[in-house]
Order: sequence, then structure tokens, then C-alpha cells
Amino acid sequence: MLKHTIQNLKQITERYQTPFYLYDEARMLDNAQKLNAAFTWNNDFKEYFAVKANPNPYILKLLKNQGFGMDCSSLPELLLAEKCGLAGEDIMFSSNNTPIEEFAKAIELGAIINLDDINHIDFLKQHLSLPELICFRYNPGNQRTGSTIIGYPEEAKFGFTRDQLFAGYRLAKDYGIKRFGIHAMIASNELEPSYFIETAEMLFKLVKEISTDIGIKFEFVNIGGGIGIPYRPDEQAVDLNVISEGIKNSYKSHIEANNQAPLKLYMECGRMITGPYGYLVTKVRHIKQTYKNFAGLDACMANLMRPGIYPNAYHHITVLGKEDLVHDILYDVTGSLCENNDKFAIDRKLPQLDIGDIVIIHDVGAHGHTMGFNYNGKLRSAELLLRKNGEIVEIRRAETIDDHFATLDFDGLARFI
Amino acid sequence: MLKHTIQNLKQITERYQTPFYLYDEARMLDNAQKLNAAFTWNNDFKEYFAVKANPNPYILKLLKNQGFGMDCSSLPELLLAEKCGLAGEDIMFSSNNTPIEEFAKAIELGAIINLDDINHIDFLKQHLSLPELICFRYNPGNQRTGSTIIGYPEEAKFGFTRDQLFAGYRLAKDYGIKRFGIHAMIASNELEPSYFIETAEMLFKLVKEISTDIGIKFEFVNIGGGIGIPYRPDEQAVDLNVISEGIKNSYKSHIEANNQAPLKLYMECGRMITGPYGYLVTKVRHIKQTYKNFAGLDACMANLMRPGIYPNAYHHITVLGKEDLVHDILYDVTGSLCENNDKFAIDRKLPQLDIGDIVIIHDVGAHGHTMGFNYNGKLRSAELLLRKNGEIVEIRRAETIDDHFATLDFDGLARFI
Repeated sequence: MLKHTIQNLKQITERYQTPFYLYDEARMLDNAQKLNAAFTWNNDFKEYFAVKANPNPYILKLLKNQGFGMDCSSLPELLLAEKCGLAGEDIMFSSNNTPIEEFAKAIELGAIINLDDINHIDFLKQHLSLPELICFRYNPGNQRTGSTIIGYPEEAKFGFTRDQLFAGYRLAKDYGIKRFGIHAMIASNELEPSYFIETAEMLFKLVKEISTDIGIKFEFVNIGGGIGIPYRPDEQAVDLNVISEGIKNSYKSHIEANNQAPLKLYMECGRMITGPYGYLVTKVRHIKQTYKNFAGLDACMANLMRPGIYPNAYHHITVLGKEDLVHDILYDVTGSLCENNDKFAIDRKLPQLDIGDIVIIHDVGAHGHTMGFNYNGKLRSAELLLRKNGEIVEIRRAETIDDHFATLDFDGLARFI
Repeated sequence: MLKHTIQNLKQITERYQTPFYLYDEARMLDNAQKLNAAFTWNNDFKEYFAVKANPNPYILKLLKNQGFGMDCSSLPELLLAEKCGLAGEDIMFSSNNTPIEEFAKAIELGAIINLDDINHIDFLKQHLSLPELICFRYNPGNQRTGSTIIGYPEEAKFGFTRDQLFAGYRLAKDYGIKRFGIHAMIASNELEPSYFIETAEMLFKLVKEISTDIGIKFEFVNIGGGIGIPYRPDEQAVDLNVISEGIKNSYKSHIEANNQAPLKLYMECGRMITGPYGYLVTKVRHIKQTYKNFAGLDACMANLMRPGIYPNAYHHITVLGKEDLVHDILYDVTGSLCENNDKFAIDRKLPQLDIGDIVIIHDVGAHGHTMGFNYNGKLRSAELLLRKNGEIVEIRRAETIDDHFATLDFDGLARFI
């Protein structure tokens, strides 16, 4: 049942108050290097990390040092990238229903602008300025099936239709733009490698068609992210070499053979970059037995939303020092919200739990802390980084009640009748 | 299609930047008074407002002035009640998997302690002190069916079993406690009045059985909350007089006839108190047409989570000044998150929308602002109160990027390698 261990966790829990997030730098960077290594056949391969997956700037800085760019979708995300020293085309701005001030900041930073809607071409021209390099997000509609999390592409709010792509690039060319990219993002947490090869091939074919039809030259394709991680112990990580090999073959057939090379290959993975290397470290606060066995943790939905809002979101759970005991007791592992879906696991077989046990919730390094809320007045936890040298750095402090009340005027309340 | 109007909304949107929450004091207090009026047959009827539904202390203070108590489930909620001038048995502390410091604060305030688990009796005795008045939460298991939102009681983490109730009151009596209450909360957003009458009757019968068996006297039953609101235009509000009349008859049969009177009747409604009197006021920022029509608002899931996380959560939408136009265009009404479930409505028939239109999302006065998150770096909005005299009071300012970054140490980041 054991997924992987964290060195010295017991000592860490003696120094830092649970619950906290803990990220494992060594394993995270090893994985980042593997991604880069898998795609060396493409000279300009670049991963733009999806900041929304884990917007902690210390994590972002580590990834930047691996040569990653950042995929930003809002003004705060752009500011975080800037604080990490990123600028220019190391930032990709992929947003939808975008406020003008966010476009303005992205343009100021020199980010690659990835438009979600054809109307935004004229919007930029009229209200700001057209960038030198432009990218459009393609939504293939019913040509692709999507995935369970992201839904059917034709239902999705994202991207251009095929006709809009052609019209958009033509318009951009007419407006004097000379540098082009194309993007799609239609999967989420997908473990089937062929899906990503198909997406790349879909975009390669479009590059050829659009280039021929309109007479423009593409600099890059961004095949998006969506590579899944093995949340369940019986699942296997995607073999990046299989994806890479498939994309390479498709590149040869569709890009090289049609004189479209060189074409840069970009990705914007989030989950697979940081997901498996983050742990939510909590303690058993309470054990309760009624119609079921309940183990109440000192963490709750405020710390990790996925299990509560996605009914099928599995997170593996291990108990420090009890990894090798028989796992034969069914527990619902809960938080303390007055909300019945505040459960990290339902009917999970675990060893006998006792108050004070350290419980590790695995694979929370992406879409974990960042999705937390403050319902019931619950506070979001600290984030710690386990450095390669064994040192622990607090990379985000725990939220306080004062933080939580920051937007309230209690002096005004005292006068309020 | 019109639900109800807000006076002078156009002028308010000229003074305050959208998106914002707007609460209608007059209608909210009128409704609160109706609840009190419906239960005058019980001399000590008291509604303990479920703070989690709307923890804005200005709202709480208005409700306190109507004689309401507060149902708190966490330390921040207790502090909010205290800031509003509440103390003692005007506060009910109903929590689960509870940290000791939260029990300590509740006891310090003199709140009614409503225990979720039989183990907490000894926990309080050993680590803090037993209160003078104690209440237990009953979970009827498969004796009741629950509701779609709250789930089946036997799957729920909340409350005592029937056997535990008897054992718990006996233990409490042995420990010298002399004042008792009983509580259940097994429905959420339920529109069928008989459900609440059945819950009251279930508790009345238990009062009689437990009193007889153990020889204690109950002071109150708290039948919980869960009264729904008509989110959809074709739904009807629950008739409080029907609930009251049914409970009164049951009270006569089971309490008065068995010499258990007087017994105080408590409720802990949240949604029906504030839900219909809160509006999320937003603007159309972007119109997009691909495989569907999309109207992008300046609000997103950060401002209102319910439609995104509960697939069946309907919120009525009206468009200021276009209420009487033909509603014949299907729109997905979206936010700006990079998350496909960031939609306020799917396939909703609305009048033709234009950029700048003021869009009102109805019935967000409960479980609205309080459930917001900061995913994608999105910020939570301001809350405004429309006072009875027409004045507007900002009762919560909008969150800023600085608030959002408050738990990050950017100086440390600059030094971080």
C-alpha cells in the first residue's frame, strides 16, 4: 500500500504544526528533468508550467531553474511569474473571458498571448496593442472526445472553432502580425499516452493546412497539458518516452515532410510536474464509531478540496509507522467541516488508527493547497519544502484568523446599528 | 421570469465596482420576523442562525437584533458571534471532530455545547470542564432517508446513534449535569414541510423515552435547519405555518400529553434566513460564440461556488433592464477560470446579452460568498448591504492581490536559490 516515503517525517511533524503541505524538491526536480530529457529531439521543447496547479512562487522558481516557462491565466499568476524573474516569451498567457488589465500586464511582460476567442484579436487592436507573436487556442468540438474531468470539447467554453482558427490567423496576418503559434488543451488527468500523440498530430495537421492556406509560418505548437498521475496504487505513470516517440513520428510525417520544420514543441503540464511530490501531512484528532468508523483529521476541505468536490478523486493515504500493518479496517477519513462531503476517503481500508497518528495524504502537489477555501471559517495551511539537502523551508505560512478577517471592518461593525 | 427587484440597482452599479454581493435588509428582516411569528405558540422558540451560511458579522448583527441566536461550528465563527455582542446560551456550538481550543472558547463564552460524539463527554471532563447544559446531536441512521445534498444519515459523519444517545445522557447525568437538550440536523435545502414535522416528532418521542428511561428533564429540542428555498422560479417557498402547525400538534401529543412541557423549540436554519435576500451583481465582460453561446461575466467561481461544484444547483439569472424581453437565446453563463465547470448556468434561456449588461444572480445570500476560493488567483468580492432607508453600506471590502499574497514571503523568495 505504500506509495513512497519522506525522510525524517516524524521529526518534521515535531517541529511544524500539522496540517501542512510538504513538497519533495529532489523528486520533483528529477521528474522535471525527465520531462525535458524525453523531448530533446525537439531543439526548442519547452514546458510552460500551469501555475494554477501550484502557484507557490518557491516551487515556480525551482521549476524556472529547470528551464520551464510559466503558463499564467490571471493577473496574480502573471505577478507571481514576474516575482520569480520570468519575463518575455518564458510566460504564456492563456486566459478566457479576460479583463483588459490582465491582457495589459501580459503584454507589458512580453508574454506569449494565447487568445481564447477570435473577438479578442480586434479587442486587443482597439484597446491595447497587437503583440508581435500570437497564438490561438483550438477547440476541436466533437472531433475529439475530451476526458471525464474536462468534459466534451463542444460543451467547453474554451477556444476557437476550426473555421475561427482560419479566419483568426488570416485577420492577424492582415493586421501585420508575423509570428504565430497554435495551442489546444482538451484533456485533464489523462493516463493514456495516445491521447497526447493524437493532440499533437491534430495540431501538426492544422499547422500544415493553415500555413498553406493563409501563407503564414508557425513557430510553435503547444499541445497543452493534461497528463495524468497515478493517484491509485494500481495505476501506472504515463511513459513520457512513449508520448515523445509518438509525437516525434508524427512530427516527421506532418511537419518535416511538409517543410514546416523547425517547429517548437511546447507543453503546459501542471499536475504531472508537481502532483506526486506534494503531501498533506495531518494528524488524527478524533476517532468516532457510529454506523461506520470515522477518523477525524486536523485537516479538512479547506486544506484539500478535491475529494470533497470530485466524487471520484482518490488520494492515497498512509499512516506513519503503520505502513506495514494489516490494512483491514474500513474508515471514512474526515475533516471537521459542518459539511458531509468533507471526507478525504470513504470506506478506505487502513490499519487501526489512534489519536495522534500522522496521516499522509498523497499526490496533493497539484490542485491541492491552491483550491482551498475558508468555508466554516476554516484556515488554509502552511506549505513546507523539503530541500535536496534535507533542510526544511517554510514556503508559505499558515493562514491566521486575522488574515481571514482582513476584509472586515470591525470598527464599523461596532458603530453599526 | 423575474424573481424580485432591487431598487436603484443601476445607480448602485455606477458607484460600486462589480462583481459585488448585495443584501436586502428589509426583505431579510421581514422574513426573519415571519419565522419568529410562525412559532409564537412555543414561548421560548429561538432560531440559532447557522453562521456558516453567511458569516458576515453585519448580517449576524441584524439577525441578532431580531432575537436570533447563532449556531457556530468553529473558532472563527465563535469570534464573529462574540464581536456581534452574543454570548451565553444565545450561542450554540455544534461542531464535529472538534479541536480542544474551540471547545475551550465555546465554554468560555457560555455557549450551549452540542456534542457530535459520545467520546466528547469524557474528553471535555478530562481536558476542560463539563458544561452546566449539554446537548447531543442525534443521527437516526437508516431510520430516516436524508436529502440529496446531505446524503443518507447512516453514511454521515455526524451525531450519536440511538444507543449512544441513551448511554450519553446517562453518563452526563452520572457526571452531575442537570440541564439537557437534544438536536438533529439531517436535511439540507428541503422544500417538503412534512420532513421537519417528522424530525420534530422523532425528537419529541426521544425526549419522552429518554426522560422516562434515565430520569432527566429536557429543556429544549433543536430540530436543526435545512429548510430549503425556491431557487427555481417554479418552486414554492416552504409555508412556515404548515411546519409550525404540524410541530405544534406533535408537541401536544408527545410533549404536553406526557408531562414534558414546557420544552423550548430551537431551529438552526441558515439558507432560508438569508439565501433569497442576497444577489451577486455582475457585468457581462465578454460574449463568445463557438459551438454554443457563452456570456462571460466579471464574476467567477471565486465569487460563487455552488453552480460549479453542485451540478444541480440552479441560480436564477436576470438581466437589468431586459427582464421583460423575450428569453429565447441559450447561453452558458461563465466566469473566467481556467476550469470548465466555472459556469453559473448551462443552456439558460436569456434575452440577447451585450457587453456591459448588469447580470443579477439570485439567491446567493447563503452558502454564497463564504464558499469562495482563490483558485487561478481569483479574488473574492465585496459585500454591500441595502439598508431599509435605501442607504448602501459596504459590509465587506473586496479582496486585493495583497490579501491573496499575504501568506507569502517575497523577501525570502528573492534570497531563495
